[in-house]
Amino acid sequence: MSGIEPIQRLVNQLSKLPGVGQKTAQRLAYYIISLPEEQVRELATAIFNGKKQVHFCPVCGNYTDKDPCALCSDTARDPSILCVVRDPRDVAAMERMRDYKGQYHVLHGVISPMDGVGPDDIRIRELMARLASGQIKEVVLATNPDIEGEATASYIARLIKPLGVRVTRIAHGVPVGGDLEYTDEVTLSKAFEGRREI
Amino acid sequence: MSGIEPIQRLVNQLSKLPGVGQKTAQRLAYYIISLPEEQVRELATAIFNGKKQVHFCPVCGNYTDKDPCALCSDTARDPSILCVVRDPRDVAAMERMRDYKGQYHVLHGVISPMDGVGPDDIRIRELMARLASGQIKEVVLATNPDIEGEATASYIARLIKPLGVRVTRIAHGVPVGGDLEYTDEVTLSKAFEGRREI
Repeated sequence: MSGIEPIQRLVNQLSKLPGVGQKTAQRLAYYIISLPEEQVRELATAIFNGKKQVHFCPVCGNYTDKDPCALCSDTARDPSILCVVRDPRDVAAMERMRDYKGQYHVLHGVISPMDGVGPDDIRIRELMARLASGQIKEVVLATNPDIEGEATASYIARLIKPLGVRVTRIAHGVPVGGDLEYTDEVTLSKAFEGRREI
Repeated sequence: MSGIEPIQRLVNQLSKLPGVGQKTAQRLAYYIISLPEEQVRELATAIFNGKKQVHFCPVCGNYTDKDPCALCSDTARDPSILCVVRDPRDVAAMERMRDYKGQYHVLHGVISPMDGVGPDDIRIRELMARLASGQIKEVVLATNPDIEGEATASYIARLIKPLGVRVTRIAHGVPVGGDLEYTDEVTLSKAFEGRREI
């Protein structure tokens, strides 16, 4: 890079981003330098403020720039149903679906003994505290359908059931637009198991 | 995105980068927010400074944070040979090769009547001014081997030849590690034409 230090520093920083290799970082760096200064300022500011202004909602644990977050303080949402997810990204995914109108609880992880993550390391205690109010009638466990996600869902279900709260798990099955031929057998068996009358 | 405005603003800004779609921008935004504040500050600063501290070298036209740039002021480099490229990215590519030890001249574009770019819109006048010193003995035309790059090279060659300066063009051929079977016929014909005794 012929000793142009600010460019090299920019390439280094960009190449730390996930999915951005050395070549992509270089392409992005040259692109950024070719932009008008005002646009670069906007980008840098959005990055800095995105981090500085966003924190975890003290109630649900989702990202927010207000306390409590827009979802928790939305009175149009049903306070009697709580969807439990692993991380804020999953809240965003659920919201894109537009069908769910209840509240959320973000665990910030899943139980994973292999990675040294136990029940006390994720927001299960906070979940139980929210259930103590008695307002919540159903908890939908929407952790990922992988080993850790399933284990976490089972663990939480066992804790909640004695409270008389309805506990549900999102359905497994063939993805819409998917192809049976290319569906793995575990998914297919779950899809068969979960078949419904039409 | 459930109204978390700083995140939405960050996603919008990131999705303006080349090759970054909405999904990638979202992934990057969540990643950035999950980083420690110090690292985010470094990234934002590198972006802002990359733009602010870098400008075009008044001599060669390459990006630089000093005047003249590190390449132009490097007395170990041969001042009698000048490599003409389209943009600063091409200088970086040539430097990665590590074989070239002469000077550069960045055109900042190529002649392209279709895009309304004529000879006066790129740094050809500045190139001729540099040649007037009489110090330069060879000009290597290293514009891309596409229509505009070839046309620009021919145009410049016609201007320079009357000055008695040697004008060369980088070789076309089969890329190293390439496969003859998959090489297009124009490249193959150039490779055949440029064959050398071994």
